[in-house]
Amino acid sequence: MRDFTNDLRWLAINSATIKSWPLQQQIEGCAQAGITGIAPWRDGVAALGPKRSRELLRAHDMTATCYCRGGMFTAAEAAGRKAAIEDNKRAIDEAAEVGARCLVLVAGGLPPGSKDIAGARAQVRDGIAAIASHARTARMPLAIEPLHPMTAADRCVVSTLDQALDLCDELGDGVGVAVDVYHVWWDPALKAAIARAGTRILTYHVCDWLVPTADLVADRGMMGDGIIDLRGIRAMVEAAGYAGHCDVEIFSARNWWTRDPAEVLQVCVERHRSVV
Amino acid sequence: MRDFTNDLRWLAINSATIKSWPLQQQIEGCAQAGITGIAPWRDGVAALGPKRSRELLRAHDMTATCYCRGGMFTAAEAAGRKAAIEDNKRAIDEAAEVGARCLVLVAGGLPPGSKDIAGARAQVRDGIAAIASHARTARMPLAIEPLHPMTAADRCVVSTLDQALDLCDELGDGVGVAVDVYHVWWDPALKAAIARAGTRILTYHVCDWLVPTADLVADRGMMGDGIIDLRGIRAMVEAAGYAGHCDVEIFSARNWWTRDPAEVLQVCVERHRSVV
Repeated sequence: MRDFTNDLRWLAINSATIKSWPLQQQIEGCAQAGITGIAPWRDGVAALGPKRSRELLRAHDMTATCYCRGGMFTAAEAAGRKAAIEDNKRAIDEAAEVGARCLVLVAGGLPPGSKDIAGARAQVRDGIAAIASHARTARMPLAIEPLHPMTAADRCVVSTLDQALDLCDELGDGVGVAVDVYHVWWDPALKAAIARAGTRILTYHVCDWLVPTADLVADRGMMGDGIIDLRGIRAMVEAAGYAGHCDVEIFSARNWWTRDPAEVLQVCVERHRSVV
Repeated sequence: MRDFTNDLRWLAINSATIKSWPLQQQIEGCAQAGITGIAPWRDGVAALGPKRSRELLRAHDMTATCYCRGGMFTAAEAAGRKAAIEDNKRAIDEAAEVGARCLVLVAGGLPPGSKDIAGARAQVRDGIAAIASHARTARMPLAIEPLHPMTAADRCVVSTLDQALDLCDELGDGVGVAVDVYHVWWDPALKAAIARAGTRILTYHVCDWLVPTADLVADRGMMGDGIIDLRGIRAMVEAAGYAGHCDVEIFSARNWWTRDPAEVLQVCVERHRSVV
């Protein structure tokens, strides 16, 4: 296990955590705080330009841990699924331009009007299969992110790490997983699934589960403020061979999004040292 | 498969769905609507008295499909866990007095201050093990109910049907499961887990998952108003050998709890005929 304390080499910030800043300010703010990684989102990169984004990341010696996000493969009509595939190819190209380590894929939920979750899951498999060779050519690893089952209806029908790994097994080289503690901490099969994942864990995300949780999407907690055994899960992913950053991804409408991002970064640094 | 249409022999109402009525009115209201089963809660039975509850159920030829609820085995201190075990033995006795078909067990969440979900799960196993012989003597089957993973922190650390079945395997005769579509519909392993459960499915609960869902506990939908494939899951449980009622259990602060229970019962009857 790596030394936990005082080591910012393994702390990254997801753009969503400090989203009131534009990307340039995010990169500069992270660098100023001693943070060595950032996970940019497509909208931020589009606003700044992929080339300029890459230059700024390099100038600050900042790792782009993962590019957020592709996916959303499900649609009622074939035209919608085709459009999603084309859009994901563009996301792969952008991720490569920026120099990100992987592209995160959030599957998508049930198409409007559908109750067929098995069908939606098949659409996701077909969608990833349709972009896998493009990703391999671009040397851009795809990180399938299982999302918490409470998002299965409207966001992500990939609900467990084992289910994501089944997709990896089926789809072959260049396809791995994103592990976010918020989405997987509850899973009785977690320890075995992380071991099964091994070095297919392409990115590792942290935050915390609050009690009570007021919203299904935007009420995540800062590490240490909730009930997730962060050090326990980190030990599992590192034992599996993961040696990358811990990306702080906090959607928090009632708390962290209302604060000054510079303050949020300071708290992330403190909590990374004390509890992650 | 049983005939779906116009058959109220398999419709039951959980007391929680029409909780603004006292139990006597619930029983009489269900009988008047042609409904043949009810799932009483402990508070309602305590208010009416177990003996009188049983008499009223018999007088209306009403099946008490399951008794809600035991469980809540987790606690920070041993004294708290011991108190839970004693309380569950009382719940078993009450369920037997009322003549219920099984006692539903909701595990309990993480003890306050704890981040140890594996430990909480061990407490649940130990708790059920400590009441199992009491339940066998009382001839009262115990129905472990997996709850949606979004409740794992504060309500129920038994999060999947397979996890509940692992407990059944370990604990032996007299321990089965409660299957509630709301809690399990998202599970990629659902079909296999229901087949594995077989006749250990002691009670089957229905409602629907709304999009969007506004609250983690009290925003369930009426059958047909959400995205759950109710007929698909019912076919699975019946293929596994389940031949009991479909219990309508709807926690709905913003809609169904605000309505006249007589109206709610009529809608339950219509939806049972058309979509369950």
